[in-house]
Amino acid sequence: MGIQTLGNLNVKRLNHLMEKEGVEAVVSVSPENVLYTSGTNIITQQLLRERLALTVITKSGDATLIVCGIEESLAREESWISDLRTYVEFKESPIDLLVEYLKEKGLGTAKIAVEVDYLTHRYSQELTSSLPSLDIVAAEPILFDLRAIKNPEEVEKLRHAATVTTNVMEEVFQEASPGMTEQQISSLMIKKLIDQGADKHEFIVIGTGERSQIIHPLAEDIPLQSGDVLKVDFGGKFKGYFSDVARTVLVGEPTARQEFVLSTLAEIHREVIQSAKPGIRYSDLYNKCKDLFAEKGLPFFMPHIGHSLGLGLHEEPIISPLNDDIIQENVILNIEPICIDDESKGGYHIEDLVLITENGPDILTGSSLNEHPIIIK
Amino acid sequence: MGIQTLGNLNVKRLNHLMEKEGVEAVVSVSPENVLYTSGTNIITQQLLRERLALTVITKSGDATLIVCGIEESLAREESWISDLRTYVEFKESPIDLLVEYLKEKGLGTAKIAVEVDYLTHRYSQELTSSLPSLDIVAAEPILFDLRAIKNPEEVEKLRHAATVTTNVMEEVFQEASPGMTEQQISSLMIKKLIDQGADKHEFIVIGTGERSQIIHPLAEDIPLQSGDVLKVDFGGKFKGYFSDVARTVLVGEPTARQEFVLSTLAEIHREVIQSAKPGIRYSDLYNKCKDLFAEKGLPFFMPHIGHSLGLGLHEEPIISPLNDDIIQENVILNIEPICIDDESKGGYHIEDLVLITENGPDILTGSSLNEHPIIIK
Repeated sequence: MGIQTLGNLNVKRLNHLMEKEGVEAVVSVSPENVLYTSGTNIITQQLLRERLALTVITKSGDATLIVCGIEESLAREESWISDLRTYVEFKESPIDLLVEYLKEKGLGTAKIAVEVDYLTHRYSQELTSSLPSLDIVAAEPILFDLRAIKNPEEVEKLRHAATVTTNVMEEVFQEASPGMTEQQISSLMIKKLIDQGADKHEFIVIGTGERSQIIHPLAEDIPLQSGDVLKVDFGGKFKGYFSDVARTVLVGEPTARQEFVLSTLAEIHREVIQSAKPGIRYSDLYNKCKDLFAEKGLPFFMPHIGHSLGLGLHEEPIISPLNDDIIQENVILNIEPICIDDESKGGYHIEDLVLITENGPDILTGSSLNEHPIIIK
Repeated sequence: MGIQTLGNLNVKRLNHLMEKEGVEAVVSVSPENVLYTSGTNIITQQLLRERLALTVITKSGDATLIVCGIEESLAREESWISDLRTYVEFKESPIDLLVEYLKEKGLGTAKIAVEVDYLTHRYSQELTSSLPSLDIVAAEPILFDLRAIKNPEEVEKLRHAATVTTNVMEEVFQEASPGMTEQQISSLMIKKLIDQGADKHEFIVIGTGERSQIIHPLAEDIPLQSGDVLKVDFGGKFKGYFSDVARTVLVGEPTARQEFVLSTLAEIHREVIQSAKPGIRYSDLYNKCKDLFAEKGLPFFMPHIGHSLGLGLHEEPIISPLNDDIIQENVILNIEPICIDDESKGGYHIEDLVLITENGPDILTGSSLNEHPIIIK
């Protein structure tokens, strides 16, 4: 088939990236990249790792989608890739079909890009023992680069997911009161998210009192009490796209220190968002955040302060001190400073999603950014 | 630390399995095996593949848990493994800590078992380039064998998850009526599951009308109509343990063929469950099911007719023609015949969870097994 028919995929950009990396083909194996490159959402691939689905897209414009036979009808209905190949689970290996395809296209000894952070040891051994002269490099730089620049349709999907999630959280905080348990709050948020049309709730980390100091605690049967810090980090999927929002609220009669830490964190968060402009380095944005923590007297520990988001939860770019890349327009970033404060024995976390534009940040969460500390009474 | 303190882990059985496979250590890297061996549920490990958590358990009774620094507080609170080692994400690789540990224990050139169906190509290359003489074999046979026999506590967790899920599905079928959409039914089921205390809804595949012939369709905005087949396969997690139940119901005025296919499938399902006894081969159980389809005049296509369940969705043993192992007591099995019937243009799927006991199958879904076709009026 001609590659021009490959649905939403930005083929020109993909070809340019293949050229740049000097590879003849890109092999996607992770659920998010198979979805991105094929247009089909094979959910069992997320649940059953060994039931591999994969796409191969070559520089000369050929593409195939290899799936377990049980997914053939779905793939045929949804994907724009017409060269669909299927294997019988437990009997055949998807890697045999990949090997066959590469040979067919004269790529048995070529330099190709494969998702090395997803392909498993077993499948990798199969591939290299069938094609020992194949030159495998990481496909991640190509695929992350391809996915980092969101098209307007993706931005709107992400804005919808982010706004809905933020609103759900704020609604539940309005309804909450001391005595309600972490589990009740968690359950309310999840149900509202489903009511608002999420495909799925993906995660909720919720910790109250001293448990808020744990980065990723799960809901327990612990009631909110006056004087607690309540930290929630919550996300779902909407038509394949993630949301990921964090809020921290105070319960009953907060201490002065709690109010200070939370409002200072919110200030820092807003300042960092305003600094997220095309042309500056990710490492500079990270350092800006770190410096603000020092300046305002909050303890800082984070190895990164944010990440991109899309079909995956943590996409590149990552806002870390090690990332000297330049922020581009149409990148979206979750900016999420966290403060673990010994003095108030609390953990504080605020996370919002921002689209980088020439005219400044477009806040996709559309929210108050935790501007005025929410207090559950 | 002495291995005798390793929480719930059946250390004697693990040691026996290591002995049998001739390995000096087992390295777990998948979320389910890290949870099983360490007792800590690191949810970001499921969401962020590269943020690896791993355990090493040696034959001589040493154990370590290696996690990303951000998860240290959680791991320290939850795990029984006291030798906890942490790495800084993006800066250090978890594999360096693994290499260091293996060297420390004199296992740098030993034969060790690693989860080769989870460890990625990149991490695998790092490991083998640091320790080129390390002899890596698959840990999966050991870990699946270890997890296949459920202890009474696990059985009760799985029974609870299965019963709740079945009840939720049946409640929603009672409330449903023609005109309701797939999405509404899906959303109702998910919310009820959350209300019943699920940690998470994991998947729902739902197809009505001709879409029921697709094995894994996702909910769409399609209303139920009289004459439809509605097929639902649904599962969540409860305290880390999966549920996985499928039901097929008819809508309005079913055709004679639809009623025949569904009630015949339900008959076959019950007969297969009754045949699932300790001492027979999995392949025989599969063939029994296949023969019953032929005998009763239903089309058969399945590469397997069931699987075990636990911390993972598809656990071994799998009921496939290739599995000549003998069914053991205290194994639990999801038995799930599917019929895709061209004549009635419908897909039919019934799935229940069964504990194998000497006294016959103990049906953990506790349900009517789709005995009388449910008709949505």
